[in-house]
Amino acid sequence: MRVINFNAGPAGLPLPALERAQKEFTELGNSGMSIMEHSHRGKDYDAVHNEAIALMRELLDVPATHDVLFMQGGAHLQFSLIPLNFLPQGKSADYLTTGHWSKMALSEVKALGGMVGSVREAVNTEVDGKFTRVPKQSEIEIDAGAAYAHYTTNNTIYGTQWHYTPDVGNVPLIADMSSDFIWKKFDVSKYAMAYAGAQKNIGPSGVVVIIARKDFIESGRADLSKTLKYSTYAKANSLFNTPPTFAIYMVRNVLAWVKEMGGLDAIHARNLKKGEILYGALDAMSDFYKSPVEKESRSYMNVVFRLPSEELEAKFVAEAKENGMVGLKGHRAVGGIRASTYNAVSVENIEALVAFMEKFKKANG
Amino acid sequence: MRVINFNAGPAGLPLPALERAQKEFTELGNSGMSIMEHSHRGKDYDAVHNEAIALMRELLDVPATHDVLFMQGGAHLQFSLIPLNFLPQGKSADYLTTGHWSKMALSEVKALGGMVGSVREAVNTEVDGKFTRVPKQSEIEIDAGAAYAHYTTNNTIYGTQWHYTPDVGNVPLIADMSSDFIWKKFDVSKYAMAYAGAQKNIGPSGVVVIIARKDFIESGRADLSKTLKYSTYAKANSLFNTPPTFAIYMVRNVLAWVKEMGGLDAIHARNLKKGEILYGALDAMSDFYKSPVEKESRSYMNVVFRLPSEELEAKFVAEAKENGMVGLKGHRAVGGIRASTYNAVSVENIEALVAFMEKFKKANG
Repeated sequence: MRVINFNAGPAGLPLPALERAQKEFTELGNSGMSIMEHSHRGKDYDAVHNEAIALMRELLDVPATHDVLFMQGGAHLQFSLIPLNFLPQGKSADYLTTGHWSKMALSEVKALGGMVGSVREAVNTEVDGKFTRVPKQSEIEIDAGAAYAHYTTNNTIYGTQWHYTPDVGNVPLIADMSSDFIWKKFDVSKYAMAYAGAQKNIGPSGVVVIIARKDFIESGRADLSKTLKYSTYAKANSLFNTPPTFAIYMVRNVLAWVKEMGGLDAIHARNLKKGEILYGALDAMSDFYKSPVEKESRSYMNVVFRLPSEELEAKFVAEAKENGMVGLKGHRAVGGIRASTYNAVSVENIEALVAFMEKFKKANG
Repeated sequence: MRVINFNAGPAGLPLPALERAQKEFTELGNSGMSIMEHSHRGKDYDAVHNEAIALMRELLDVPATHDVLFMQGGAHLQFSLIPLNFLPQGKSADYLTTGHWSKMALSEVKALGGMVGSVREAVNTEVDGKFTRVPKQSEIEIDAGAAYAHYTTNNTIYGTQWHYTPDVGNVPLIADMSSDFIWKKFDVSKYAMAYAGAQKNIGPSGVVVIIARKDFIESGRADLSKTLKYSTYAKANSLFNTPPTFAIYMVRNVLAWVKEMGGLDAIHARNLKKGEILYGALDAMSDFYKSPVEKESRSYMNVVFRLPSEELEAKFVAEAKENGMVGLKGHRAVGGIRASTYNAVSVENIEALVAFMEKFKKANG
């Protein structure tokens, strides 16, 4: 029996998307082979590849000014490729620090040393080694001459999320959206680049989606190997080298499911409802469950909370598992409980969690 | 009905490995979720990950001096990471040019310009824009002070293959084995590094296997971002960031199948037999089918040949398809016919191809 999956990533995927893949796993249509045995230069794969891109464009209303690319290496590789392409020596880039992954993105640029330009922090909301909120616009000090400004839209570990797009003036804005990509629509035109590892909301690990302005891609450094340049992938419709074909096929299946669910407006409404129910329960039982996160910064993708003791937290995780709910242990860096509530998690799943929380509080409160 | 798949890569995979994945696609064991929905930090994925590595070590007798790593980005990313890690400014590396991919590996180093050291060609077997053979040892001029020597063990497009390991003295030897990895055992101890994109012999696209000497990995440049350093993956057992979990799971399934088939000695004998039958047929019908490849350099993974005219070649590909055999069109760079005969292709598949070739010759010769 399938469990209720609150994993932080790789995360649960919509069952219809999985079942579709299972059904045709050894024979795609009448082609006599699995999608993963098809040439990436053949028409069967091409149809899947282009449908995945078309669905992405449709769901997000991606304007003609922007390309949709698929790459490999996770968001981590983007942390290096972004400065290698867009931060030449002599220039500086702004980083907005709001959690573990935005810190990692910054430290990767620094580690590249003399290969790239310099970095500065436009804001940092860390207090005593912890992050509990994203900044207000007034706290962000953008360098008007920056090569770009980089931020992380959702902080998976700390359970905080930006609920506005920071105004960075004319500086190209780059966002790591790995953990809240397509939780709702966003205004693509505001971004020079948005990228997301697939393994939260749109597919298995092993593929990264990049949405970037064509002229920004073209502005990248020329003296780099082909494989490290975004322009190479843009020119070749992400078929420069062999793409992770099966991962992209799964992304296609998940995006087709999103469309069937009513598109991103319906998904957004569903995610808001899930958040209302779960945060509502936390607020109603705040004598037992404590949210460490500032209310305005609450994440709708990763809901973190603490119990009165670590012993109770361990008991909570264990008993939830007995009740068919897994993935609730908080990240080792912060402890506590984390329920990741990506698109594949349903309202009913959240209601089941809340019912369990109520029962657990009654028994242990 | 499944076809006979002669694709060059992504290529056919063993049906038992696919069926195993299909069966447990939505629920792995009693875990209540797909392997691709599991956390890469959890025990279920960990078991798969470590089994894949253990099988690789067992099948290839990988010595304790060497690590087995999984990375992303295809062989293409390796073309850049190798010089970034092992070719510091002021040093030079030797490249052995024997085909399309070895040329690409070389041009990627050159494109990195001042970020890395310089390159020279220790040998180049190109004649009039074509490659028909690999060099003899006596033709290879190694720079004894080279940072490393790089070669490509099998040339997918030109259908040539090295049948010996080049002697490069004390220079660290690096091999791109993407298109003939585990077609038989090889002496891992001779290599500072061997790497292979999975999508020919061991799995789907989206994962690269690296086997490298621990001290060579450690000798790599320190002032690089974590994500670009081999040492990062080695220290973390390839779990530094989220690996392509499903692709690695498929590699595990394929390697388990190799073991069940009797291991690499049995696979090697099978591949030799396939080569004997197919090259035997080409030789016996050399008035109609022409092999452009030097006999000593014939590849056992990609068998290329020409027919008397391009029209007949197109007809051959079309009629083969009607007979359930696909993927026979040669690479666009060279034309003609190419039968890729990776491990998943059986002796019976080759016999079917030869029977078709005989019939086709009779009808059109």
